[in-house]
Amino acid sequence: MRYELYYWPEIQGRGEFVRLALEDAGVDYADVARLPKRAGGGIPTLMRFLEGRSVDHPPFAPPFLKAGGLVIGQTANILFFLGSRLGLVPKNEASRLWAHQLQLTIADWVAEVHDTHHPISGGLYYEEQKREAKRRAKDFREERLPKFLDYFEQVLRRSPKRNGYLVGKAVSYVDLSIFQMMEGLRYAFPRAMARLERTHPRLVALRDRVSTRPRIAAYLSSERRLPFNQQDIFRHYPELDG
Amino acid sequence: MRYELYYWPEIQGRGEFVRLALEDAGVDYADVARLPKRAGGGIPTLMRFLEGRSVDHPPFAPPFLKAGGLVIGQTANILFFLGSRLGLVPKNEASRLWAHQLQLTIADWVAEVHDTHHPISGGLYYEEQKREAKRRAKDFREERLPKFLDYFEQVLRRSPKRNGYLVGKAVSYVDLSIFQMMEGLRYAFPRAMARLERTHPRLVALRDRVSTRPRIAAYLSSERRLPFNQQDIFRHYPELDG
Repeated sequence: MRYELYYWPEIQGRGEFVRLALEDAGVDYADVARLPKRAGGGIPTLMRFLEGRSVDHPPFAPPFLKAGGLVIGQTANILFFLGSRLGLVPKNEASRLWAHQLQLTIADWVAEVHDTHHPISGGLYYEEQKREAKRRAKDFREERLPKFLDYFEQVLRRSPKRNGYLVGKAVSYVDLSIFQMMEGLRYAFPRAMARLERTHPRLVALRDRVSTRPRIAAYLSSERRLPFNQQDIFRHYPELDG
Repeated sequence: MRYELYYWPEIQGRGEFVRLALEDAGVDYADVARLPKRAGGGIPTLMRFLEGRSVDHPPFAPPFLKAGGLVIGQTANILFFLGSRLGLVPKNEASRLWAHQLQLTIADWVAEVHDTHHPISGGLYYEEQKREAKRRAKDFREERLPKFLDYFEQVLRRSPKRNGYLVGKAVSYVDLSIFQMMEGLRYAFPRAMARLERTHPRLVALRDRVSTRPRIAAYLSSERRLPFNQQDIFRHYPELDG
């Protein structure tokens, strides 16, 4: 099975959570929109699925994954599907639901990160909603960010295995996603994170541990890993970092 | 199996999507926080799970469902779990993933509805973010609401069965959730919806069809159905309806 990931070609965005799972598993996949145009890459290939009249199950937005005859949308749904196939989640139903529940909470967190710089509209520039962004980012830094960090730190603390992973005995796609959250938050809110990391040692240790996994380390130093940038979900505006 | 739903006792909120599935299936369930205090009801019973040191899999927020030894959080995850058990989704994996993908898109839509009246912070009153709410609600009415409605209308139009349901041959939990979206949007944005419904006839027909299902009709006219109100996700502020 060769998986095909469809996502915007110039940002990490939500697609990155899927890329990290595919990379850690070491499976064959194409990041389709990043292929050269002559090989079917570029944004038009995304649009064919989003607007094409011939698609029975059109996604609302990227990312989506093509796996054989299936086209699967919504990041957490893709990871739910891939998790069991790639060995990135325990096999029993209770663990799979729990991993998915955590991933959906990460999805909510990502949406809130996005809205710190776009609290009014994704269709307007940051500069057109900067005043509102400052208010929203303050609430995010002071209320929401600590709440999410506290929650995941507590999950690590309560984990029956007490082995530093969020789900079960080994790394799961949720751990890879938490790595991405920590990386993105450090990029976007370096001052807030420097302060908050001191009281969330388990999350920092998990980030470190994921970063040294051989396939993840190889991916991060490759050209396949796009750099963080100011068109992405995680953006660094010093005025939003308090 | 007696299901136990845990959700805020005085709003429809995200819990309502679960209530509709349980009601349509006609199964035995307790809406635990709405029970009398002497029977274990009230908000403290929610808090026991959210803050309790003894819970291995703590939810981030209500709703969550207790089913035997499982405690499952995140609305769409609960519906994914319940769907196959209650006969509210086809059995094959492709249909279950597709239904879940649609439900996750509804979850995103719900979050955007919430943020029309709380674009800055869920911890502040509406009146403290009214100016920002007017801007965000305008964008929602003019850009996002049509986009979501167009998407689901298109899914109904493209459905291979062309039978008026979103997934497969019979009603699914996603259809029940779309009913709730249409009801909530009519309450919150009556003017915008009166205009938009004219070009989304399949969604209106689906809403009507769900409303006449015997168990749903009985539920809607019972005291178990809480009225829409101004503490809920769907709120009617005339100034946000354009």
